[in-house]
Amino acid sequence: MPNITIRPAVPADIPEILAFIRELATYEREPESAQATHEDLLRDGFGPTPRFHCLIAELSSTNNLLTPAGFALYFHNYSTWRGNAGIFLEDLFVRPAFRGRGIGKALIAAVAAIAVAEGCSRFEWAVLDWNTPAIDFYTSLDATPLSEWTTMRLTGPALATLAAKA
Amino acid sequence: MPNITIRPAVPADIPEILAFIRELATYEREPESAQATHEDLLRDGFGPTPRFHCLIAELSSTNNLLTPAGFALYFHNYSTWRGNAGIFLEDLFVRPAFRGRGIGKALIAAVAAIAVAEGCSRFEWAVLDWNTPAIDFYTSLDATPLSEWTTMRLTGPALATLAAKA
Repeated sequence: MPNITIRPAVPADIPEILAFIRELATYEREPESAQATHEDLLRDGFGPTPRFHCLIAELSSTNNLLTPAGFALYFHNYSTWRGNAGIFLEDLFVRPAFRGRGIGKALIAAVAAIAVAEGCSRFEWAVLDWNTPAIDFYTSLDATPLSEWTTMRLTGPALATLAAKA
Repeated sequence: MPNITIRPAVPADIPEILAFIRELATYEREPESAQATHEDLLRDGFGPTPRFHCLIAELSSTNNLLTPAGFALYFHNYSTWRGNAGIFLEDLFVRPAFRGRGIGKALIAAVAAIAVAEGCSRFEWAVLDWNTPAIDFYTSLDATPLSEWTTMRLTGPALATLAAKA
């Protein structure tokens, strides 16, 4: 039976992280939206002030081969009510062939442990309303849906228009 | 007619920022939730690696008195699809006595300009579903509601329980 190993990503993982991001975008029905490049992730994840952090889940089999199975990517947000940083899990993904073995739970538990170790009082992420397996999984963890809040987004020309009014 | 000035917050603004946070929590019907302290904001907003950034809006009248009227507090998030950081506006607040003068718009435009200057492709925030004036204001800016996403949160014992499984 293979074992699950969770470890922080290093720059050599970037091609695999890009593959995970593209596979997750495909699962989320927006394959064309995954535009990040190797250069982007190197600059933003592995420089002096990282914009994100990433964990890799690998399966190790008896012949010592390591197979990348999934990833978790997060950054810090901030609560002005609690007066401390929290963790926002931007991406959590396990390849379909490796689901049902507890890898997703091992990844999200590893990020939760980082949140606790860092003194973060909140651990948050977002879920798509049609993603029933994910909703069931998160409910099983006693996560609370912030149903009364809607995220708003400005991008492209609308963002440029508002910025020009400053 | 008073003029609006928008400037980055400095540590001397912390008492005013705490007052704004408490007033906003009261408006959001959770006055008891605002627990941040002076020490928290000093540590997290004004150290070597700030967890948040803050702008202050002041009204200047003809006698050169500056009156604090509102604030915007934000941090950076990350898009693995775009491959760059974005800005998340955690708090935007204008004191009731100073509303209707364009101060909220000046604050959000200033944050949008920072997003554009930093090369961020997304500028996001969250709105409460009963806050009709805010929803109307954000709609007037051509912001898009990400209605298909729900934020999930783990905190307190549920967070500790999951972390213990890592």
